[in-house]
Amino acid sequence: MLNILIANDDGIHAKGLRSLIEIARPFGNVTVVAPDSAMSGMGHAITTNRPLRLRLLKKEENYREYSCSGTPVDCVKIGLKVALEDQPVDLILSGINHGSNASSNVIYSGTMGAAIEGSIEGIKSIGFSLLDYDLDADFSQSADFIRDIITEVLKNPIPKGVALNVNIPKAKKEDIKGVRVCTQADAYWIEEYIARKDPWGGDYYWLAGEFESGNVAEDSDVRALEQNYIAIVPVQHNLTAFGAIEKLNSLNK
Amino acid sequence: MLNILIANDDGIHAKGLRSLIEIARPFGNVTVVAPDSAMSGMGHAITTNRPLRLRLLKKEENYREYSCSGTPVDCVKIGLKVALEDQPVDLILSGINHGSNASSNVIYSGTMGAAIEGSIEGIKSIGFSLLDYDLDADFSQSADFIRDIITEVLKNPIPKGVALNVNIPKAKKEDIKGVRVCTQADAYWIEEYIARKDPWGGDYYWLAGEFESGNVAEDSDVRALEQNYIAIVPVQHNLTAFGAIEKLNSLNK
Repeated sequence: MLNILIANDDGIHAKGLRSLIEIARPFGNVTVVAPDSAMSGMGHAITTNRPLRLRLLKKEENYREYSCSGTPVDCVKIGLKVALEDQPVDLILSGINHGSNASSNVIYSGTMGAAIEGSIEGIKSIGFSLLDYDLDADFSQSADFIRDIITEVLKNPIPKGVALNVNIPKAKKEDIKGVRVCTQADAYWIEEYIARKDPWGGDYYWLAGEFESGNVAEDSDVRALEQNYIAIVPVQHNLTAFGAIEKLNSLNK
Repeated sequence: MLNILIANDDGIHAKGLRSLIEIARPFGNVTVVAPDSAMSGMGHAITTNRPLRLRLLKKEENYREYSCSGTPVDCVKIGLKVALEDQPVDLILSGINHGSNASSNVIYSGTMGAAIEGSIEGIKSIGFSLLDYDLDADFSQSADFIRDIITEVLKNPIPKGVALNVNIPKAKKEDIKGVRVCTQADAYWIEEYIARKDPWGGDYYWLAGEFESGNVAEDSDVRALEQNYIAIVPVQHNLTAFGAIEKLNSLNK
């Protein structure tokens, strides 16, 4: 029986996590380890300066569910080591995230942090995100696509050191045109800080902004999503900019 | 006059930050924005679920110093937008970190999160780390090397979307053999969780482990550091595993 670990970054109570659990359970033995609070934007953060709590919330046949006090990456680490006691794991699923992790969002994403951590451990890992930030987003429209992607990934190898970043357009099932393997779009947030005063006159700042994706490549995730395709970007954790090494030759001393 | 932003992940009081400030000030107008507490392991995390505080601690000619309640990446973002009011910035420096960010450590590193954020903003960005976790580590041995690297980076272009990950061996100045541009070593932590009980009988877990770097490439940062070279890895924030795209062709539907 397949051993599957599920994590996310929106926390144990998120609707997107519930949808992913429902899709995953028919595939095998499922262990869920999800943050006990929302952990959006945590990227690849781990908890180093305090210990972690791990709480068993539910146990059924071939199913266990834990909450963890740490980040999404902590959830994968403690999930593999403590909850699953170092048993071999066949598949790590993360999400379904409420909101896009396409383009440069992948770097800040706790959902993808968890999936990338799985790929570091040499386990097939997929992060899923729906382009809808609503807490009550409709995840049912993409369930069949997610099931098919999981089936395909279980059948075929994934290159070493690679995790899959799957972003799903906010669309009705019949309007989703298909699935495309893509590159990460070169698009960014135009950010601003909104300054406010607390009741005692002190300043504080909210990070806000708008995503700017005007001029992206035709083969990019942003372009595929605009055309109502599901976008899959293979992402790697070796960050070396190999093409830059020769250009930096003057630094060698 | 050059405009320089400095951040780190060990926090505003860290000795490594003080050393970097001392090295950087002769280069131009320096603005420091550093976390008000230790933020090791925060990777590329940003704060999304609460507002940030930014506190001006010191103001001298061509020098300002702020603490920020957020992560290292938050420090860069709010540093550029609020502290520097969107003025053009020539250089972002991060560190000097207490401990290695070579090999896969780069992914978890708040020091490198800050530097990578700078490269996303199109600014020349360098993260520095010394292979010594001691709070009182001796940063003076590498000061001349760091000064030379900054000088070289200011003189020459850095490829678009690339930040520099500089790791420095724990060695006397005279024993440091030179500087090498390297690849990120394929080495990992063998982790374990140490389980303890709180005074009320509840379980908690400390993440611990050992870094395993047996069989790394000759041109990697780990190998250069073993031979007492300073290792510079150019890192990119486009995570696309381009080589994997064709291999995943069966996912296209």
